[in-house]
Amino acid sequence: MKLDKTQKILIVGLGLIGGSYAAALRARGHRVSAITKEQSSLDYALSRGIIDEGSTEIDPAMIRQADVVIFALYPHVFLDWIRENQSLFSPGTILTDVTGVKGAIVCEIQQILRPDVEFIAAHPMAGREVCGVENSDPAIFRGANYIVVPTEKNTEGAKEFCRSLGEALGFRTIGELSPEKHDEMIAFLSQLTHCIAVSLMCASDDPDLREYTGDSFRDLTRIARINEEMWSELFLLNRDALLREIDRFLSRMGELRAALADGDAETMKTMMRLSTERRRHFDRK
Amino acid sequence: MKLDKTQKILIVGLGLIGGSYAAALRARGHRVSAITKEQSSLDYALSRGIIDEGSTEIDPAMIRQADVVIFALYPHVFLDWIRENQSLFSPGTILTDVTGVKGAIVCEIQQILRPDVEFIAAHPMAGREVCGVENSDPAIFRGANYIVVPTEKNTEGAKEFCRSLGEALGFRTIGELSPEKHDEMIAFLSQLTHCIAVSLMCASDDPDLREYTGDSFRDLTRIARINEEMWSELFLLNRDALLREIDRFLSRMGELRAALADGDAETMKTMMRLSTERRRHFDRK
Repeated sequence: MKLDKTQKILIVGLGLIGGSYAAALRARGHRVSAITKEQSSLDYALSRGIIDEGSTEIDPAMIRQADVVIFALYPHVFLDWIRENQSLFSPGTILTDVTGVKGAIVCEIQQILRPDVEFIAAHPMAGREVCGVENSDPAIFRGANYIVVPTEKNTEGAKEFCRSLGEALGFRTIGELSPEKHDEMIAFLSQLTHCIAVSLMCASDDPDLREYTGDSFRDLTRIARINEEMWSELFLLNRDALLREIDRFLSRMGELRAALADGDAETMKTMMRLSTERRRHFDRK
Repeated sequence: MKLDKTQKILIVGLGLIGGSYAAALRARGHRVSAITKEQSSLDYALSRGIIDEGSTEIDPAMIRQADVVIFALYPHVFLDWIRENQSLFSPGTILTDVTGVKGAIVCEIQQILRPDVEFIAAHPMAGREVCGVENSDPAIFRGANYIVVPTEKNTEGAKEFCRSLGEALGFRTIGELSPEKHDEMIAFLSQLTHCIAVSLMCASDDPDLREYTGDSFRDLTRIARINEEMWSELFLLNRDALLREIDRFLSRMGELRAALADGDAETMKTMMRLSTERRRHFDRK
């Protein structure tokens, strides 16, 4: 089963990612409706032709008509929405999401969900330092990774569907990970890097620094502009994995600090050689 | 006194930065000679028209002819060179450098230097993740900062000359800092960021991560490809300032870690709001 143009798509939550999904899918000829809290987001999306129709209320007819429902909500809002409104889905509806952590979400949703609809989790690894539908842009998916995160409750058909959705959105690579492996990877590659950027940005308030800032500091702190509501929620939902990664990083940084304090150039050089060698493999192909 | 085209320029050390200086100055019509250790670097620079003439040996005539000598050497090599060869300068010669730390270098050079030549220190804040004259490119100076680092021993004329050199090289901004303030700023903006990138890159050896790497991790580790000989020497020459900055960063990271461990969302959000607000001022104008 693949995404096809006869399927009606409903997006719940028109922020940066929901809006970018809507724009990408409508541009490919899908009928896209949206339910979102703010009238201004809806007005913007309608005026720009990002969606065909929308509502700020739970609209039973709109939900019933949807073949595919994509949730682009904060994790706790997503869980509440399913609890309160799942009776409105038509049988056979496919649900997917864009949530940045999976372990704390996927199994709970699948446990409480009606047996005649299927939830297949996905994580579009894309974003910007700004939020809101007004900043949405399907170009953020180009060159980025899309990860399908199935459990043993998912069917082959839903997995195939989810992969085809990622392809339709324009992602460069489509991967598949278990919720546990996904959360581990995210803790290191994304959450730890945001913790570092925030801590670095908080470490000095010398305004003179601005005029001397070069690319190194700018690159390391680009992601220090951060939506604090969303990221604090995602950090807490992945607490154990993130603490492990923070501790691994702090332990390495402690080694480098000790070598510097001891005047131990050899240990510093060994770490630098390792980092240089490893980083080589992370260049964009 | 400003840089003018009648002045003969000698560059000592044809690496990435020395080569980029040579190319920029020769393109502006200066006669540029070079002394460098490796015959292959010299051959490359001559074949590409980056220099007019050069030598792998200490060439007394070449040194005597120079009005301006630019040192692009490792700090300890620079100090040794001055000790051994300063008798060869003509009276009135201006010396400058490109060294990435100043406190440990500038005063020592000025102390041992003949009174009839003047050393005015400068730091071109530009670089690449690769080294050698083969990678030199004056384009790395565009958009970058050039800092003149005078002491009370320097004349107004030499400071003016040094600023005009930075302008001729194509830097976006020319600043001026004392050696102490320079080293503090460099410890935070440049050395700490390299310590973080190296530690992060050393923190995981999971090869599966590569395929999921997005822009956040790539941006934070770009500078993890590092010339270990040069950076370990620069770190050690600025040890106290760098240790202070590492500790300030680790202390903030420790606060964020503790908030996460305690489930204290408010502290995490407060740090994220601060980092978001501060980062805004660091965007490129």
